[in-house]
Amino acid sequence: MSYQSYPSLLLEEAVSEFSKLPGIGKKTALRLVLHLLKQPAEEVSHFGNAIIALRNGVKFCKECNNISDTETCRICADTNRDHKTICVVENIKDVMSVENTGQYHGVYHVLGGIISPMDGIGPSDLKIDLLEQKISKENIDELVFALSATAEGDTTIFYLHRKLSKYPVMMSTIARGVAVGDELEYADSVTLGRSIVNRVPFEGKV
Amino acid sequence: MSYQSYPSLLLEEAVSEFSKLPGIGKKTALRLVLHLLKQPAEEVSHFGNAIIALRNGVKFCKECNNISDTETCRICADTNRDHKTICVVENIKDVMSVENTGQYHGVYHVLGGIISPMDGIGPSDLKIDLLEQKISKENIDELVFALSATAEGDTTIFYLHRKLSKYPVMMSTIARGVAVGDELEYADSVTLGRSIVNRVPFEGKV
Repeated sequence: MSYQSYPSLLLEEAVSEFSKLPGIGKKTALRLVLHLLKQPAEEVSHFGNAIIALRNGVKFCKECNNISDTETCRICADTNRDHKTICVVENIKDVMSVENTGQYHGVYHVLGGIISPMDGIGPSDLKIDLLEQKISKENIDELVFALSATAEGDTTIFYLHRKLSKYPVMMSTIARGVAVGDELEYADSVTLGRSIVNRVPFEGKV
Repeated sequence: MSYQSYPSLLLEEAVSEFSKLPGIGKKTALRLVLHLLKQPAEEVSHFGNAIIALRNGVKFCKECNNISDTETCRICADTNRDHKTICVVENIKDVMSVENTGQYHGVYHVLGGIISPMDGIGPSDLKIDLLEQKISKENIDELVFALSATAEGDTTIFYLHRKLSKYPVMMSTIARGVAVGDELEYADSVTLGRSIVNRVPFEGKV
């Protein structure tokens, strides 16, 4: 009798868990697991606990839906920031990208996705209510849409513009210094910074 | 003030842990961590616990150094296997590869590496004592060296052969030759030369 499967159930379990991650197949998962087996036990425990703590401990800022360790994120809690300008982004990676430019001093609103019928993501899957609530209650000057220059990004901007145009708030999109078709997370910070400085009023087309 | 780092320490910690894995950089680590954040909490806990359980729970077979959930691995515990033939391999992936062929019915010895001066790995870093102990005590017929066809693999075979030749055990290496399915014109001359020297009698099938 030959044993064509994993020699240990614990190993098989760990490989199976790693291979659930995006872009990681069974072979890579096995390589990572064998690497972990060679590390000191306390380091591996630290890794496992960091993952558990992450999911259980991370909060979403009640103001802007950004990831945070506290109820209100560092940016929303910062009184030196311009709280009358809200930059609307898809996810927290985009918050980090915009912060990286050093060109933006307002606050953010993280949608948690963009409208993408192909992926089955509609407006109800995004944190739009929280944004509308904020605009209706507070005195917001400007919404800056910093979304990817893709069909999905444009669709989301059109949707938000239609939904929010009843409120007295200026809406702008970041300038298309970002090449059309490019994803925001791959834009270099100089280009992205330029596109924030040169944002243009949104008047029904991009 | 702008925040160019991660918006959460828990996030930063998890990204830092993931990026310690081989072949995973900061960007990939962030992508994996954000993926985990979208998963249900119990699944993420399961992942973290699988990693901790792996490192703390996995044992190494006291017979052959293969990974196992028990003191003696399934292969060593199998009385139907030929315990007088030992296949010497570098790591547990190689055990799985050889098992996969369905052509081998002996037991294994996992060295845990091969001699590689470039990587600072010498004979003392490998589980050679355990193998020598076994050969000196038990009545072993044959050692089959199934190591990579590289300078490091060859060095390891030479070393083991010299160290173990005082024992009455036959030693063999797996055949080096043209891979099944490969075209002859693309085989390198060293491999082709080896396969000519080691030619086998044709008995109606290959």
